[in-house]
Amino acid sequence: MNIHPPYLIFLGDVPDALAAKTGLGIVDWRPEWCLGQLRLPGCQADAEIPDLTIAEAKAQGVRTMVIGAVNAGGVLPAHWVSSIVAALQAGMDIASGLHTRLGDIPEIAAAAAGSGGALHDVRHTKERFATGKGTKRAGRRLLTVGTDCSVGKKYTALAMEKAMREAGMNADFRATGQTGVFISGRGAAIDAVVADFISGAVEWISPAADDPDHWDLVEGQGSLFHPSFSGVTLGLLHGAQPDAFIVCHEPTRTTMRGVQHRLPDIRDVIDMTIALGRLTNPAIRCVGLAINTEKLGEAEARAYLKEVSERYGLPASDPVRFGVEPILRFLQASFAF
Amino acid sequence: MNIHPPYLIFLGDVPDALAAKTGLGIVDWRPEWCLGQLRLPGCQADAEIPDLTIAEAKAQGVRTMVIGAVNAGGVLPAHWVSSIVAALQAGMDIASGLHTRLGDIPEIAAAAAGSGGALHDVRHTKERFATGKGTKRAGRRLLTVGTDCSVGKKYTALAMEKAMREAGMNADFRATGQTGVFISGRGAAIDAVVADFISGAVEWISPAADDPDHWDLVEGQGSLFHPSFSGVTLGLLHGAQPDAFIVCHEPTRTTMRGVQHRLPDIRDVIDMTIALGRLTNPAIRCVGLAINTEKLGEAEARAYLKEVSERYGLPASDPVRFGVEPILRFLQASFAF
Repeated sequence: MNIHPPYLIFLGDVPDALAAKTGLGIVDWRPEWCLGQLRLPGCQADAEIPDLTIAEAKAQGVRTMVIGAVNAGGVLPAHWVSSIVAALQAGMDIASGLHTRLGDIPEIAAAAAGSGGALHDVRHTKERFATGKGTKRAGRRLLTVGTDCSVGKKYTALAMEKAMREAGMNADFRATGQTGVFISGRGAAIDAVVADFISGAVEWISPAADDPDHWDLVEGQGSLFHPSFSGVTLGLLHGAQPDAFIVCHEPTRTTMRGVQHRLPDIRDVIDMTIALGRLTNPAIRCVGLAINTEKLGEAEARAYLKEVSERYGLPASDPVRFGVEPILRFLQASFAF
Repeated sequence: MNIHPPYLIFLGDVPDALAAKTGLGIVDWRPEWCLGQLRLPGCQADAEIPDLTIAEAKAQGVRTMVIGAVNAGGVLPAHWVSSIVAALQAGMDIASGLHTRLGDIPEIAAAAAGSGGALHDVRHTKERFATGKGTKRAGRRLLTVGTDCSVGKKYTALAMEKAMREAGMNADFRATGQTGVFISGRGAAIDAVVADFISGAVEWISPAADDPDHWDLVEGQGSLFHPSFSGVTLGLLHGAQPDAFIVCHEPTRTTMRGVQHRLPDIRDVIDMTIALGRLTNPAIRCVGLAINTEKLGEAEARAYLKEVSERYGLPASDPVRFGVEPILRFLQASFAF
């Protein structure tokens, strides 16, 4: 799935910023790709980029309108359809992460057939993957893993990409979830792939690099210790064959998201990731801890980071609050030879 | 997916027994369900059950015709369609494990619509699964795991079901692959499920039992150490929450099926299965080794079984050659309290 920027971010008429999380995330990480937003009357979200009509967006060179908002249930509201049809008629492609397939709406299917525009349903990849092979590919890879779901794995991978590029390194974020696919313009929602092809899909997402010093920053999913999603996580680990990984953690959480199981220790996640990951990369190592300290005061956060850094002998930071510099420096030192 | 016996086993005109493996497997394990076979001119496979016409099968009470053969590529040959249409017109359901969806063939779709017969595409489950919850369910569960793919996991689970039933125990085989689904009349091809729902599908396949002493014998898939399929294996382990597991192994194999990776040690598989499996069942334990000794002479096979049994302190047998009695006795002793 290759989604072509620049984008027009469609926010519909959602009632709050949370419902526009996907669109706001794209604007955060790829402001240069987001020429404007399209909001319907009553929209309570604002990405703080220019409001553009479809004609204005087209005139400015937009290639794809991304549905960056979601209503309850993930279905496509009937009153959004005319905007999508108009964008297609103006010559744009459409990309969506909704459960509803764009092509299942007859008016959208007809408009796409008429204009030749592409319909990208990120939750329903049409890509045919091979089964994973597990053979070593050229280039370096870093994977973000976690003690749970929703602890900052995407954010950490993107923050590492940004910091590494600023440091002059050759680095690309590799998306495995829908928002990530919009941010990178490529990738696949790995949890929507047929089970037999998880690692094979990751081998496609993170292919052999031309430059042996190139880094892929692979977005992690789930947790090896999450009873709902562990299969996705292990397939992703084996497919990504990471040289390095960062453990993401939220220290105030006691049970895992959506289930009653307690959070694993950071130690358990490090050890298990190495024990399993060495199958496809015997040199796998942990290069840092990314701690989501949102619920801690600043002094408390700094004390916690110092404590876990000493306990595990690894750099620890909150990528949102304090950046990823300590992790980047350790990574550079660890792979300097 | 509930497939209703009795069955008519359709073998088409396949060139050898290997191409009829699915049908022959069903006849082996469920002879009482298989009233007859339907073979086309030139068929080189024989399940050694009565050859029946569709009219004869219907008269004897057959409810489902199972496509028990496969041609190269897994597609449905055009000259098999008329037999399928005739079976539908006689009032039978059709079950298939081919890649081609039965309903994608217009003649078959029309016949099914006309007769009201069900079309079961085992590779394309229509069942909607929830994500796994990982909470403890009533009843006991045994999972077969392996050092590799295709080392006897289905056979071992079925052999355990048979031996346990003969010993008066309340036990049911639970299918996670297509041949297993035909043998049990229920289940799902777990490798064809969307990645997010692997463990959830297994929770559906092996639901809470009414009888706390009931055993589910869950068919394993893949290996935690296979770079292509490890995600399926871990989701299956967490979903099955087994009290007991049997490690299946083929001692002459050096690399894993389809890839260049060496086979893991039995010890590694035992330790990793416990380390990961304890997330959803802290009491998980290994109760035996099922060794496929097909490529060894009898004396050599017996010596190998004795050696691994002593090395790991576990009963070891070849279920095909020597039966599963030692494993059953150890299981009974281990869960007698």
